[in-house]
Amino acid sequence: MTANRQWIYARKPEGEVGPDNFELREIPMPEPGAGEVLVRATLLSLDPASRAWMQGATYRSQLHPGDVMAGWGIGEVVKSNSHGFAAGDLVSGETGWQEYAALPARALVKHDKKHKPEHYLSVLGIIGLTAYFGLLDVGKPRPGETVLVSGAAGAVGSIAGQIAKLMGCRVVGTTRGADKCKWIVDELGFDAAVDYQNDNLDKALKAACPNGLDVYFDNTGGAVLEAALRRMNLFGRVACCGVVSQYNTSAPSPGPFGVPGFLVTKRIRMEGFVVMDFYSRRVEAEAALGRWLDEGKIKAPVDIVDGFEKMPSALAGMFAGKNRGKLMVRV
Amino acid sequence: MTANRQWIYARKPEGEVGPDNFELREIPMPEPGAGEVLVRATLLSLDPASRAWMQGATYRSQLHPGDVMAGWGIGEVVKSNSHGFAAGDLVSGETGWQEYAALPARALVKHDKKHKPEHYLSVLGIIGLTAYFGLLDVGKPRPGETVLVSGAAGAVGSIAGQIAKLMGCRVVGTTRGADKCKWIVDELGFDAAVDYQNDNLDKALKAACPNGLDVYFDNTGGAVLEAALRRMNLFGRVACCGVVSQYNTSAPSPGPFGVPGFLVTKRIRMEGFVVMDFYSRRVEAEAALGRWLDEGKIKAPVDIVDGFEKMPSALAGMFAGKNRGKLMVRV
Repeated sequence: MTANRQWIYARKPEGEVGPDNFELREIPMPEPGAGEVLVRATLLSLDPASRAWMQGATYRSQLHPGDVMAGWGIGEVVKSNSHGFAAGDLVSGETGWQEYAALPARALVKHDKKHKPEHYLSVLGIIGLTAYFGLLDVGKPRPGETVLVSGAAGAVGSIAGQIAKLMGCRVVGTTRGADKCKWIVDELGFDAAVDYQNDNLDKALKAACPNGLDVYFDNTGGAVLEAALRRMNLFGRVACCGVVSQYNTSAPSPGPFGVPGFLVTKRIRMEGFVVMDFYSRRVEAEAALGRWLDEGKIKAPVDIVDGFEKMPSALAGMFAGKNRGKLMVRV
Repeated sequence: MTANRQWIYARKPEGEVGPDNFELREIPMPEPGAGEVLVRATLLSLDPASRAWMQGATYRSQLHPGDVMAGWGIGEVVKSNSHGFAAGDLVSGETGWQEYAALPARALVKHDKKHKPEHYLSVLGIIGLTAYFGLLDVGKPRPGETVLVSGAAGAVGSIAGQIAKLMGCRVVGTTRGADKCKWIVDELGFDAAVDYQNDNLDKALKAACPNGLDVYFDNTGGAVLEAALRRMNLFGRVACCGVVSQYNTSAPSPGPFGVPGFLVTKRIRMEGFVVMDFYSRRVEAEAALGRWLDEGKIKAPVDIVDGFEKMPSALAGMFAGKNRGKLMVRV
């Protein structure tokens, strides 16, 4: 009888999340019930939203201490009590932070093995859909416009910026540190990068966006949002994807200066979205993203940490800005 | 030779605007040049934006000390050097705060005398267009939804709220003081009113909007905007029309808490607009507003102060919340 290891969300963080908020538990491997499928996770996803779920609902409901830590994963079917799945299938779903999960068949998606498993947790999964719909349907860039992406070295930002390049836009990214600034330009093809911690944001945005800013794909909120609103052109759009600057704190900042004043005078549209609202159109997005990936038009950077026991420290590392592209743990 | 009296914008206000910021000047009556029309103002408009122009551009450029104070007016053509106009015509335009203005013919609009002159400065003018397009094209309410309007006893708010009622919405207004709260309900047909200075905003909005809030027509920003975002339903919309809570101060507040966090989790769209962007569609709006007015479906409350010399004190009075409906001065 194999055991199943789980990371339990044990204590609500006061400020920054870290290993203290989790406890490792070992229980017997679950037995799938009627209509259920037993999955052995091979890759588990770590997301900024993981921290947000400790504060409230986003695209899943709020977490409470004692829950198995929530998260998406991909893995292999070990045993199936559903006609739709067979042992050996590659599947993804909300496995939680555990080595084995018994899940209802309807909560799982089966993948072909044409792409690498990690891509189904990144560019071909929720990450890619978020970038695709948020940029194209909420931000609505047009060729020649200037697009700013915050969290540009992160999972969603790295894809959103590349899609904006495919749209014929000038694309500027914000990230932390000279290395990641260089990386998004040299590797991902951004036109310019701004180090939000070390550069003077207003000056740097002015230099990087000589024609002003038309679309801001906002993963962070905070100071970058404020500076983006100042630099924004008439009829600019802010696609509000996430607020990573505010997740990992117990003292959220006030809203950005210039809301709603700049919104009126510059006719800016700020619009929040959650990827699940576009889920009925996922086939369209998956087809486009898969094609771009196959044709080499976008890169799908992934940052894989080895070892299930490293889940909590990898999550803390993400908020410290350590990852490049989609962060996940190999179980 | 008749003299022309003008109010000059003399000194930038440090905080609240008042008579100290203006100087009355008497100069000879202007002589219209080629293609120009001499207008004798009969009614001059006072608007929250009058204060905003001292800080920056809105739907007109910024004012500078020494300028004739800016503003719209309606009056009678005294002398015309344009084929399009004749003495006795009823016209409106950006006359500024003066008794006589010589203006290029293209800057004037001729009105029939079917409606009262004051209505061309209110429901059938920029005010009505602002309410019409801001509510219907930016806020996009649907029957049965709940609409909140701030500054609901003011010029734009009083019209926007009535249009929302025509759309079949539950309509709640915020204003200052029990008298004006009663007035917007009894006279204008709002379903409920909230006194933003005396009520606990969160409690009062919860009581007035039992099904939450779908559209917020925001004339004020500030605390009402914050409370509205907390009460807003999924896929709510904020039509950002003005920020009257911030015009009359030298120390603007930070932005509302919950931007962008609530925007993401509740998929809220906040969108600023300026009426001039819809000017190409004014005929549509004027036809609808005129029909509603003729049929008695909306009321067009106006608050007329007698005496050109009272312009500065009337403007200060508006920020003290004294007016009901569109404020103007009879010259």
